[in-house]
Amino acid sequence: MTRKVDLNADMGEGFGPWSMGDDAALLDIVTSANIACGFHAGDPDVMAKTMARAVKNGVGIGAHPGFADLKGFGRRQLPIPPDEIANAVAYQLGAAQAMARRAGGQVRHLKLHGALSNMACVDADLARVCFETALAVDPDIIIMVLAATAMEDVVRDLGCAWAGEIFADRAYNDDGTLVDRRLPGAVLHDTAIAAPRILEMLKAGAIIAESGKRIPCEIDTICLHGDTPAAVEMACGIRDHLQNAGITLQTL
Amino acid sequence: MTRKVDLNADMGEGFGPWSMGDDAALLDIVTSANIACGFHAGDPDVMAKTMARAVKNGVGIGAHPGFADLKGFGRRQLPIPPDEIANAVAYQLGAAQAMARRAGGQVRHLKLHGALSNMACVDADLARVCFETALAVDPDIIIMVLAATAMEDVVRDLGCAWAGEIFADRAYNDDGTLVDRRLPGAVLHDTAIAAPRILEMLKAGAIIAESGKRIPCEIDTICLHGDTPAAVEMACGIRDHLQNAGITLQTL
Amino acid sequence: MTRKVDLNADMGEGFGPWSMGDDAALLDIVTSANIACGFHAGDPDVMAKTMARAVKNGVGIGAHPGFADLKGFGRRQLPIPPDEIANAVAYQLGAAQAMARRAGGQVRHLKLHGALSNMACVDADLARVCFETALAVDPDIIIMVLAATAMEDVVRDLGCAWAGEIFADRAYNDDGTLVDRRLPGAVLHDTAIAAPRILEMLKAGAIIAESGKRIPCEIDTICLHGDTPAAVEMACGIRDHLQNAGITLQTL
Amino acid sequence: MTRKVDLNADMGEGFGPWSMGDDAALLDIVTSANIACGFHAGDPDVMAKTMARAVKNGVGIGAHPGFADLKGFGRRQLPIPPDEIANAVAYQLGAAQAMARRAGGQVRHLKLHGALSNMACVDADLARVCFETALAVDPDIIIMVLAATAMEDVVRDLGCAWAGEIFADRAYNDDGTLVDRRLPGAVLHDTAIAAPRILEMLKAGAIIAESGKRIPCEIDTICLHGDTPAAVEMACGIRDHLQNAGITLQTL
Repeated sequence: MTRKVDLNADMGEGFGPWSMGDDAALLDIVTSANIACGFHAGDPDVMAKTMARAVKNGVGIGAHPGFADLKGFGRRQLPIPPDEIANAVAYQLGAAQAMARRAGGQVRHLKLHGALSNMACVDADLARVCFETALAVDPDIIIMVLAATAMEDVVRDLGCAWAGEIFADRAYNDDGTLVDRRLPGAVLHDTAIAAPRILEMLKAGAIIAESGKRIPCEIDTICLHGDTPAAVEMACGIRDHLQNAGITLQTL
Repeated sequence: MTRKVDLNADMGEGFGPWSMGDDAALLDIVTSANIACGFHAGDPDVMAKTMARAVKNGVGIGAHPGFADLKGFGRRQLPIPPDEIANAVAYQLGAAQAMARRAGGQVRHLKLHGALSNMACVDADLARVCFETALAVDPDIIIMVLAATAMEDVVRDLGCAWAGEIFADRAYNDDGTLVDRRLPGAVLHDTAIAAPRILEMLKAGAIIAESGKRIPCEIDTICLHGDTPAAVEMACGIRDHLQNAGITLQTL
Repeated sequence: MTRKVDLNADMGEGFGPWSMGDDAALLDIVTSANIACGFHAGDPDVMAKTMARAVKNGVGIGAHPGFADLKGFGRRQLPIPPDEIANAVAYQLGAAQAMARRAGGQVRHLKLHGALSNMACVDADLARVCFETALAVDPDIIIMVLAATAMEDVVRDLGCAWAGEIFADRAYNDDGTLVDRRLPGAVLHDTAIAAPRILEMLKAGAIIAESGKRIPCEIDTICLHGDTPAAVEMACGIRDHLQNAGITLQTL
Repeated sequence: MTRKVDLNADMGEGFGPWSMGDDAALLDIVTSANIACGFHAGDPDVMAKTMARAVKNGVGIGAHPGFADLKGFGRRQLPIPPDEIANAVAYQLGAAQAMARRAGGQVRHLKLHGALSNMACVDADLARVCFETALAVDPDIIIMVLAATAMEDVVRDLGCAWAGEIFADRAYNDDGTLVDRRLPGAVLHDTAIAAPRILEMLKAGAIIAESGKRIPCEIDTICLHGDTPAAVEMACGIRDHLQNAGITLQTL
């Protein structure tokens, strides 16, 4: 059984006058922060503030690059050629590295955001382009991948440092993909269900699908959300449940 | 007398479908390239292309951060507090570093662009904020400063690596500032005048104002322009004139 | 004594994934809505949604143009020449007109936003450029001006339809300008103070400064805010207080 | 045989410091101008300048809306739902109307740009959404459609004012679609070939495909380009050829 795990969450997703989510609360819960890099959300000031808090709380900093699409929050699949996506990933990662350095920290991991992540989960070539780009910028960076997807195949093949991620609040299909958000039960809202489920997955070393099917995979980190007060509460509940079960929460 | 000097030019100033200047021609002339970082001009694709060419030609890469103002090309003095300017400088420098690393090179120097540069020339506090930020990101970076301005005072005080810059095609006032563009003679268009003038300044180790007055300063690099065919031709002529006079052209 | 007055509020200030303020609540309170036009906030989708609601509630639609500055929310005074400001005002007004028409309504008034408004309050030339531009686009548009400022002088001189505005929650200096936000008492948070104060101003036909001094002016509309739950509550309280005093709340 | 035809060209495609094409030259050739509205190119200042010139030259003004994608110049097919596309079309059309009014003219026609046009050529539902939106904003607007595409079916069904357009410099397939740009012969560069070909199409009242096949259609306007000096020269040559053949060139 896994004795330790990392808890991660997306943050730094405000822009200019607009805020999103409760980063301050999340930074008291998670051990890794995926920080938006200004293309789909975030700006240099939001990044600086979020990173300063992460460093203060001892939370690991991750670059969270996405498509250059503020209006669509990086959730629209844009038809951009791989070499341009690579340029965008390098640019955002570099920006995050400099901001982290100034905040007294460093970028430890990279996690793709939104549509870019969705595309790379099913397109190994795209995943490879993104990850090779990140490794060209920093050979020691940890690539965070969605467990049991094309992303995982790519990092195994690259032989780089990586971490497998599962979602705390999403139901899984038998093939390891997420249940469509529009279907009932796709998103878990009850901590009393979500927390034991995650613990069971950690114990099993496997994603447990809705059907009960087990998909063995490496689980290094659990993705939490903080966009609503209820989400923050669930994140808290999951953290407590894992700690009470003797799991050590620890940065990648 | 100075026996060697660097020639620099701003480039990578296209954006998306729009191009600006003849970067390919300039990269055959200069020894340092100040590359726009996506805020006032440039985008990750333009940066990648420009840096690849610079590396190929052995031209030193510089980050050329400016205000986030594509519409105004970074030439509008924006009322932004110093800490936000610092964040913007760090972000752009980091992005440039990652792009340069991927291109097989590195960012060797930093030069402020447009309105940000104009403001830092007369505001030592602002210059200090910008330069300290750059040095926090990379302690070895060479800060390019306009010779005989507040910028120079700051880098001398910081004790960092720096390079003093003069303009090949601009007339100077007696206090070392540039003659207002709107005045006759402010911009030199004749290589036969500009080239010997620059050589004389190098020999004198001083800016030579319109009046003939000499303002002693360190001249490490000369700024050329390439936004028009005539500008490229002048850049060529100045390079040839200096080389014929036995000056070695050499990256910072 | 004034027997009727318009209540206005800024809204439609979200952008893409980000929301701001409680427009739904405000649209149940105000009689005029100043709707952001996409330059400092708002986007075509936010505008469409906000205008549809305004039409449904019988709330008068106003165009609320600002500087093209999402990051700064239009609150930074940008050094833009008057002819470019005029172009930006015409563009935003036209966009709002088309959106309003599609929503089954029409743009009835124009109110400048943020830094542009602050600048036009003290710069009659700028106010004139903005208002003449709006009138060139729609000769019947009602120009909303801050009472007792340069704006008011300009609309009186232009002889156009206009409405004088005072703030429900801001203290005034003796010269009719707003007390600096950073000073104690500058922003009123207590409905029990704000509501009677506004009623008194309506009765007096004058701004009543902190000192008690009265500055006679035309008060056609009162600006409310809805960016926080407390602000919405105060807006509600002021509306009720005015109605209970027999004031008719009515669109311009 | 058609005795008169309109010549149109895309223009106003600069942005901030960047220019594109030779609008001044084109405005001496064409009778209708499709003016970018700030989403894929153009900004309020470029629009104002271009419209002032169009009015001066008696050239008909058209709104040329595209996707909000400066970086991709509106040429990337974005996955945006129809109602958001409609909002974007209304917004841009309204902005153009106000700018045209201020310039002493009016928006006479609407032509979709780039990827939005490509999508609407094969997606009648999308074409209908866009055109109905434009007609809701201005019931008298002339919709410019690519002849013999789904666009044409839609305007015929809507019963609105419309104009059928063919390309002066593009080869056609037998089904009326354009030959893929990457194939040899897809783009005509020789005026001596292009000009008589267009005249023949006008005489025939049909698109003449590469194979010689004739696709009968209404030809009201011919699209010219001006992005290169050669393109401007060809536009000139075509105009002269048509005029010499007794065709009257006339705004829609």
